[in-house]
Amino acid sequence: MTTVAFIGLGIMGGPMAANLVKAGFEVVGYNRSPDRVQALVDAGGRGASSVPEAVRDADVVVTMVPDSPDVEEVTTGDDGVFAHARKGALYVDMSTIRPDVSVRVAEAGREAGLRVLDAPVSGGEAGAIEASLSIMVGGEPDDFAEARPVLDAVGKTVVHVGPAGSGQTVKAANQLIVAGNIELLAEAIVFLEAYGVDTGAALQVLGGGLAGSTVLDRKGATMLAREFKPGFRLALHHKDMGIVTSAAREAGVVIPLGAVVAQLVAATVARGDGGLDHSGLLKLVAELSGRSDSN
Amino acid sequence: MTTVAFIGLGIMGGPMAANLVKAGFEVVGYNRSPDRVQALVDAGGRGASSVPEAVRDADVVVTMVPDSPDVEEVTTGDDGVFAHARKGALYVDMSTIRPDVSVRVAEAGREAGLRVLDAPVSGGEAGAIEASLSIMVGGEPDDFAEARPVLDAVGKTVVHVGPAGSGQTVKAANQLIVAGNIELLAEAIVFLEAYGVDTGAALQVLGGGLAGSTVLDRKGATMLAREFKPGFRLALHHKDMGIVTSAAREAGVVIPLGAVVAQLVAATVARGDGGLDHSGLLKLVAELSGRSDSN
Amino acid sequence: MTTVAFIGLGIMGGPMAANLVKAGFEVVGYNRSPDRVQALVDAGGRGASSVPEAVRDADVVVTMVPDSPDVEEVTTGDDGVFAHARKGALYVDMSTIRPDVSVRVAEAGREAGLRVLDAPVSGGEAGAIEASLSIMVGGEPDDFAEARPVLDAVGKTVVHVGPAGSGQTVKAANQLIVAGNIELLAEAIVFLEAYGVDTGAALQVLGGGLAGSTVLDRKGATMLAREFKPGFRLALHHKDMGIVTSAAREAGVVIPLGAVVAQLVAATVARGDGGLDHSGLLKLVAELSGRSDSN
Amino acid sequence: MTTVAFIGLGIMGGPMAANLVKAGFEVVGYNRSPDRVQALVDAGGRGASSVPEAVRDADVVVTMVPDSPDVEEVTTGDDGVFAHARKGALYVDMSTIRPDVSVRVAEAGREAGLRVLDAPVSGGEAGAIEASLSIMVGGEPDDFAEARPVLDAVGKTVVHVGPAGSGQTVKAANQLIVAGNIELLAEAIVFLEAYGVDTGAALQVLGGGLAGSTVLDRKGATMLAREFKPGFRLALHHKDMGIVTSAAREAGVVIPLGAVVAQLVAATVARGDGGLDHSGLLKLVAELSGRSDSN
Repeated sequence: MTTVAFIGLGIMGGPMAANLVKAGFEVVGYNRSPDRVQALVDAGGRGASSVPEAVRDADVVVTMVPDSPDVEEVTTGDDGVFAHARKGALYVDMSTIRPDVSVRVAEAGREAGLRVLDAPVSGGEAGAIEASLSIMVGGEPDDFAEARPVLDAVGKTVVHVGPAGSGQTVKAANQLIVAGNIELLAEAIVFLEAYGVDTGAALQVLGGGLAGSTVLDRKGATMLAREFKPGFRLALHHKDMGIVTSAAREAGVVIPLGAVVAQLVAATVARGDGGLDHSGLLKLVAELSGRSDSN
Repeated sequence: MTTVAFIGLGIMGGPMAANLVKAGFEVVGYNRSPDRVQALVDAGGRGASSVPEAVRDADVVVTMVPDSPDVEEVTTGDDGVFAHARKGALYVDMSTIRPDVSVRVAEAGREAGLRVLDAPVSGGEAGAIEASLSIMVGGEPDDFAEARPVLDAVGKTVVHVGPAGSGQTVKAANQLIVAGNIELLAEAIVFLEAYGVDTGAALQVLGGGLAGSTVLDRKGATMLAREFKPGFRLALHHKDMGIVTSAAREAGVVIPLGAVVAQLVAATVARGDGGLDHSGLLKLVAELSGRSDSN
Repeated sequence: MTTVAFIGLGIMGGPMAANLVKAGFEVVGYNRSPDRVQALVDAGGRGASSVPEAVRDADVVVTMVPDSPDVEEVTTGDDGVFAHARKGALYVDMSTIRPDVSVRVAEAGREAGLRVLDAPVSGGEAGAIEASLSIMVGGEPDDFAEARPVLDAVGKTVVHVGPAGSGQTVKAANQLIVAGNIELLAEAIVFLEAYGVDTGAALQVLGGGLAGSTVLDRKGATMLAREFKPGFRLALHHKDMGIVTSAAREAGVVIPLGAVVAQLVAATVARGDGGLDHSGLLKLVAELSGRSDSN
Repeated sequence: MTTVAFIGLGIMGGPMAANLVKAGFEVVGYNRSPDRVQALVDAGGRGASSVPEAVRDADVVVTMVPDSPDVEEVTTGDDGVFAHARKGALYVDMSTIRPDVSVRVAEAGREAGLRVLDAPVSGGEAGAIEASLSIMVGGEPDDFAEARPVLDAVGKTVVHVGPAGSGQTVKAANQLIVAGNIELLAEAIVFLEAYGVDTGAALQVLGGGLAGSTVLDRKGATMLAREFKPGFRLALHHKDMGIVTSAAREAGVVIPLGAVVAQLVAATVARGDGGLDHSGLLKLVAELSGRSDSN
């Protein structure tokens, strides 16, 4: 039986690790706060009290941590994955981090004798719980093939998109499109409200034509109701907009819309709304239009 | 049997009128260029050689013309619909025009003893041929109810969104979202190409998550292939961005993304690409990124 | 002695008319609210109780009114300048209006037998009082030459910039640059404040280099002090941004920065700050950055 | 006599070091390419063949190198300034680099027993030759006082703006304003050209009012003539826009105009125009407006 070490048992990682248990994997989990580890044990996994202990006997090591520095620390540190995992083990980073850091981590992993994939996900907490995540994978095709059973146990759309770092690049593009689509829908909603249109009916007809989108389907009704409970927090999307604008700049790619959305997301965080769902961009558009009180 | 006068038998109006014939309506068509009228006659309709002749005996008058001044001329002129249609007839403007002009036309129509709806469509030539248009309708609920059989014969998603002008307002919002979604996808594609990602695989996984959209489904593959045959021309979308930015300004609604997209669409037209499909925004993003030669 | 009819004796027009009196012109003034007329009489001018009365014997007719519709009404109406001024009189519109309207008014004036200049001004209330306005003049060179004594009596930099409408075009460009320069300074100030820099010293050194500008010289200190008493109100600058974005669109000129500034100015007005000086853009930038409480 | 080690004798550093010689300082210069060193020797300075040799006996060490990594290397490397300068010597970095790197370098310098100032300049090659640079200085007031004779020998406006890193912060703001002012002027010029206005006359009257700026005074005429010989290259301004957008993001400051200008500057570089003067933004605006052939 394949043994999977799972490091980072938070809102996303917790249910993902539990789904691996359900799918029949031997799962050894580690998290800084021990209560999260206990939740995995309750779900049928095993707990570890350190990264070295978690990865020592693993065939596959998965990390799901917040940001680029976290991945670097948990992989290349003295107590990290690369110093303690078995030679030949498969390391899969499912965090959302900078593509250039992802490439660097992959190189360090290979030098340590591991095989490395970057496999960030889209789909949020619901997708993690339902094992219906979209997973964009960068790395060697053979390694991707070997990782498929693990990835299929937590995701629905699992696609190999290119060499190391490519998963993160696609995830960055994903976040660009998502933030932009939300902002466009927000501008459209405030516009429709200002003209006294029946917005519920309007979203229905917009969704049926070329303006249709997953954002409109999943977020439209709650945006009309001004419900911004996350979901995916603006503070995290702000981090991700930093990744995509910076990566675009490094590659000489001009993204005027991306740059403006990044400023708007930054404004929501600066104004104290970083804890809202990213559909909370609507709140900013309404306030800029002097319509904060009504909807 | 209901008699429908159909004025404007172009790329959209032609197949729509033919679909009304198929649905069993008595259709009398008028168009400036007589060959378009002949096509309707060939499809089983009747031809008229002037607006007054077309509308004289009609229960329902439909117009489908290019822009705001065209609607004003065909309705309020001496030879126009309002001077020659029967009192109590139902007038349905399916053109995409300025909401404020639409409101003004509705008032003039009511003063002339007609009932008036604005009912712009989304779905393009394909939707017109397949009778699968999305139709957003503004006007009185009773008039909407009476117009349903006609609208259902050409559309699939037919929704009443509010009082006179509301259809145009929703169409303006539709065009804002569509242009923005195309531009975001264009920025994402150039970004992914610059990083050497497998873009076909990337669009597949993007489409499966929160970044999914009708634009991505329908335009993604042709954008990757740099095929920009219209479809819906950038020159027309430029006209529509003028409508939505101007209407937002008048209502005091702030649309930062809409304003920037409007500039980018304007650039494509100024550079001579107004005849391309609106997905041709990709060409501009690639050129701004110094990547016009490759894909 | 040259007789000048002056229509529109507001914040700008009042002191301008008074300066014409001082310069030795016979000035006949008209304004809707009679108290403004009395102020001119007190300054040594003559009052009229209607436009026809004011313009009947004038060699030169000057208008200084708020917006495009006001100019159209005061010129082409039944009681307007063109119906009542002497053939061959010189009409000078110093209002800031749309260039296309200005061209149309000039044509109507010529058809009525008048000679017409557009001569909008820059410099604000202070410039009007001190007779130090910048004046950008469109129209025929001969007419410009004849108008010089009048223009020199109220302005310091008086320049002929092209045929009819050109003055308004240059004024539109002026408003684009001014709003943009203010917004850039606002972004720089909030940035410097966030880093705890000595902003007074910083503005001094910025002003001494390539970042120097008249905006920085005249508005920098009051912006640091958060003093936004007009001066030139954001509501008027909002009107002017509508003129320049619309004129750019009609000419196929792409102004990405202008379009974004126009949105930001629109936001200040929508949020209720239209009565502040245009340097009040700083307030918006600070609020977007979550720094509304401090400076 | 004060001995100054000057590291980095390029387009800016070369004439600055020569001006220090003229002002009576003992100047020891180092540059990677020896011909630059020879030019200093010809001007009356002394040459060194390594950083350690240059700084060993210096009272003041000045660096003028291209970018953040260069400063880090020349200061903290084994052969760097901090390992070889005398304890208590004054280190002045006049390069334009990231404020956070500047703060880090200052800390490392202090730990090595040096006193550190950041003192980036504005004014370009002409200002370097004429010793008329604007210099914005961060660090301790006492150190600033001691550095004044050296700074006064190369600059005209020399201002202390705050603690370590503040000079770089002000320089970042400077670059934001300058790029923005250039872009606004470019948009205005293309707009005026499209309307057939006399652009020379227009710039004269714009310069006389609130739209006036140092950019307009120094760059207006060459922009009209489409002369884009640097001066300050777009490629360097692109680097600087990266600094200011990133520093604004870190401080939670929202700079919508800065973000859009940064994209436009990035586009000029991506399109191969990085070697033009930064006023070459005009070329991009003209091309976006389909007016690349004419002016």
